[in-house]
Amino acid sequence: MRTYLDCFPCFLKQALRAARIATDDEIKIKRVLDEVGMMLRDIPLDSTPPQSGRLIYRKVSEVTGDSDPYREIKKESTQKALSLYPYLKSRVEKANDRLLTAIRIAIAGNVIDFGAYGNFDLNREVDEVFEKDFAVFDYNKFKHGLDKAREILYIGDNAGECVFDRILIEEITKPVTYVVRDAPIINDATYEDAVQAGIDSIATIISSGTDAPGAILETCSAEFKKMYHHSNFIISKGQGNYEALSNEMGPIFFLLKIKCQVIANDIGVDEGDIVLKANGD
Amino acid sequence: MRTYLDCFPCFLKQALRAARIATDDEIKIKRVLDEVGMMLRDIPLDSTPPQSGRLIYRKVSEVTGDSDPYREIKKESTQKALSLYPYLKSRVEKANDRLLTAIRIAIAGNVIDFGAYGNFDLNREVDEVFEKDFAVFDYNKFKHGLDKAREILYIGDNAGECVFDRILIEEITKPVTYVVRDAPIINDATYEDAVQAGIDSIATIISSGTDAPGAILETCSAEFKKMYHHSNFIISKGQGNYEALSNEMGPIFFLLKIKCQVIANDIGVDEGDIVLKANGD
Repeated sequence: MRTYLDCFPCFLKQALRAARIATDDEIKIKRVLDEVGMMLRDIPLDSTPPQSGRLIYRKVSEVTGDSDPYREIKKESTQKALSLYPYLKSRVEKANDRLLTAIRIAIAGNVIDFGAYGNFDLNREVDEVFEKDFAVFDYNKFKHGLDKAREILYIGDNAGECVFDRILIEEITKPVTYVVRDAPIINDATYEDAVQAGIDSIATIISSGTDAPGAILETCSAEFKKMYHHSNFIISKGQGNYEALSNEMGPIFFLLKIKCQVIANDIGVDEGDIVLKANGD
Repeated sequence: MRTYLDCFPCFLKQALRAARIATDDEIKIKRVLDEVGMMLRDIPLDSTPPQSGRLIYRKVSEVTGDSDPYREIKKESTQKALSLYPYLKSRVEKANDRLLTAIRIAIAGNVIDFGAYGNFDLNREVDEVFEKDFAVFDYNKFKHGLDKAREILYIGDNAGECVFDRILIEEITKPVTYVVRDAPIINDATYEDAVQAGIDSIATIISSGTDAPGAILETCSAEFKKMYHHSNFIISKGQGNYEALSNEMGPIFFLLKIKCQVIANDIGVDEGDIVLKANGD
């Protein structure tokens, strides 16, 4: 996905939010805003938002001196998600369509996004997701692709969300490779976060090689790119990965909750919608 | 009021909104964002927001080539407000407390603010304002001051809103001087807008001498400043004038609807609240 004009105020808003988490020093936070303001002119409209997100959050770290402002928030998200795990699992056990219920749960977990939100109500999200209609619902295509696939490449998004992804992975009877960011960026899941969520016992965890908040292929490792291009079934979670991969070829299914108007417009749905979208549809 | 950190993303958002009204040319709009981004470093936290608003909206005009993007919107606002005038007037006629009802109406008109909002529902605002509790209600002080005053300095805010101000001015049995901006900025009222609202038949209209979206005294004309300092009863409408004047001395009453979290925090109220606030309280 390209960068839209509305992304620019949002870049500044995200920088402000992250800087406030990193420091209480108003002068430093102001400097973050000054620096990010000056970066805007170098952001082309044909770049993807996570390319800029990467630079902006790095700038926040550089100015505030905190390389991982969301460290504690990520741990708390994982603990909160783990506390919900038995309930979520029971919902799958009772479901008529276990796979679909697990997909819904994986999407509910996508609300844990401190790039898009300052706060959110995870419990409410979980309550609502079982009843909510999908705005894009390529479920038959998903099931068909999953049946044919030998193994699954599952590109994760946020810490805490990994626990919700685990529920879905546990319903998939094929080998799964779970992809995390190479370094901390916003509250995106890294190797450690995936392990804390228990993903290591059900999938192979690999790094995409990028420290951007989305799997922008040109910033990913050769190993990941090879895996990506050889994959015949890819699940991409969340907005950042959608932004990074929506123009790429490949048998990708995007699972996400729509948390901003820009992405809503890009997909042709509404903010708050849930989406299971096959690439190219 | 000082500039808060949250004002910075908002500056960019406002620039984007104004640029979009001025032009459809995405390249020009992007240039506006680039230029405004670079201006942020020169905005000190101890300046008032309208000081920056002035520079930012001037930049929008400079880059887009449109010196008054809100021209048509202002005319439409005045027409819409004039169409409501008979109804508003009838509400005053039927009221137990005519002055208070007219104050409520004047505040309802403050929703016509294209700096704070992309859009709003004027009819709903009018419906709600008669029932709404004031978050700050220095009404007794207001009445007492009004009784003692020989004449009133009424600092207007937006086009369209002038019609609502007219309702209040018509309930004031003292000479009123109505203050408008010296040049078009956002949808703020200039001389022409006040005349279109019919203010000229009930008050003397003067320019504050500023082209900022708020009566920042240091940017106002000597004539206006003299009048301000000699006044013993001043009504200040809206957020921009509050931002400009909240730290100034003087017998000012701020009448406004709270349209952003920053001003809500500064006053200690909530977004959406209505306020009748004596200076210094």
